[in-house]
Amino acid sequence: MAKPVAPRGSARERVLQAALDLFIEHSVGGTSMQMIADRLGVSKPAVYYQFRSRDDIVMALVEPMFDDIVRVMKIAAAMPTQQGQRDVTVSGVVELSVRYRRLTFLFYDRAVEHAVRSREDFMAVSDAVAAILHGPNPDARARVITTTLMAGTFTAAADPELADIGDEQLHEILLDTARRVLELLA
Amino acid sequence: MAKPVAPRGSARERVLQAALDLFIEHSVGGTSMQMIADRLGVSKPAVYYQFRSRDDIVMALVEPMFDDIVRVMKIAAAMPTQQGQRDVTVSGVVELSVRYRRLTFLFYDRAVEHAVRSREDFMAVSDAVAAILHGPNPDARARVITTTLMAGTFTAAADPELADIGDEQLHEILLDTARRVLELLA
Repeated sequence: MAKPVAPRGSARERVLQAALDLFIEHSVGGTSMQMIADRLGVSKPAVYYQFRSRDDIVMALVEPMFDDIVRVMKIAAAMPTQQGQRDVTVSGVVELSVRYRRLTFLFYDRAVEHAVRSREDFMAVSDAVAAILHGPNPDARARVITTTLMAGTFTAAADPELADIGDEQLHEILLDTARRVLELLA
Repeated sequence: MAKPVAPRGSARERVLQAALDLFIEHSVGGTSMQMIADRLGVSKPAVYYQFRSRDDIVMALVEPMFDDIVRVMKIAAAMPTQQGQRDVTVSGVVELSVRYRRLTFLFYDRAVEHAVRSREDFMAVSDAVAAILHGPNPDARARVITTTLMAGTFTAAADPELADIGDEQLHEILLDTARRVLELLA
């Protein structure tokens, strides 16, 4: 097993956890470094010692998820048929949306977009997912359906109103729904 | 025709427009009353003269959309069959998501949720839409599918990457997709 970047309960890990709790309550744009420091009962410089900026915290939170998407896309790309590639991609997207269901709302936060868009590797993965789902030179129909599938899956998985539904059941229902939408692209 | 609340180009209308532009760029939580004043080249008190708070601005932006949803739900409720009620609701939701495609992202902004949830009439409409789509006493499956349908439609309609697609075409594709998802509930 790879050595974790920060041991559980480390100062870095505590900042990430406090920041995520505040992002969930107030959105990223509504959360300041001061609020994170206050939540932890530490000084603002103590937070800045761990992270240079709020964007850095957001990136540290979403990085593991992006690494996992890259892995899924490698598996998908190795499938011999386009249908096989799509099946792996949809299964992978649904699995990730459930495993990271506390995090995925970050992708739809307009305060985050700028930070994510500035990372070329993140954008390349996102483009690769879309390209496999809608194929090359997509028309308007393929683009809208692909976006609906991704946004519907990620936003539903993150919805606090569905928090009482267990991961396994959520996974099964989202996969069913995503596959049904995907049929529109076939 | 009803008299508009504010004439086009009025101070109130200009604040709403500047605020929306900033919300799109920075999210609601990332936008301060000072930023709105700066964008308009006026003082902060001039903004506060029009609206008591940022939440008030958000409410003024989403109010017309909610009024329209209430109207759609009245038409839906008058349909004699559950299938008819669902068909009207889905058509209405898709029509609204496209007509207000610059605004719908606001519903998924965590800084807005608190303001919206404090308005009982807004919550009642949102519950009514869900109740018609998934029927009484929904199980986990019905709740997840309904949420996916709504979140997929509203988030795709608001996606800046799809801004080049005209309203009419977007409407047609989203309706197709939403109806396909709805079949899973039948």
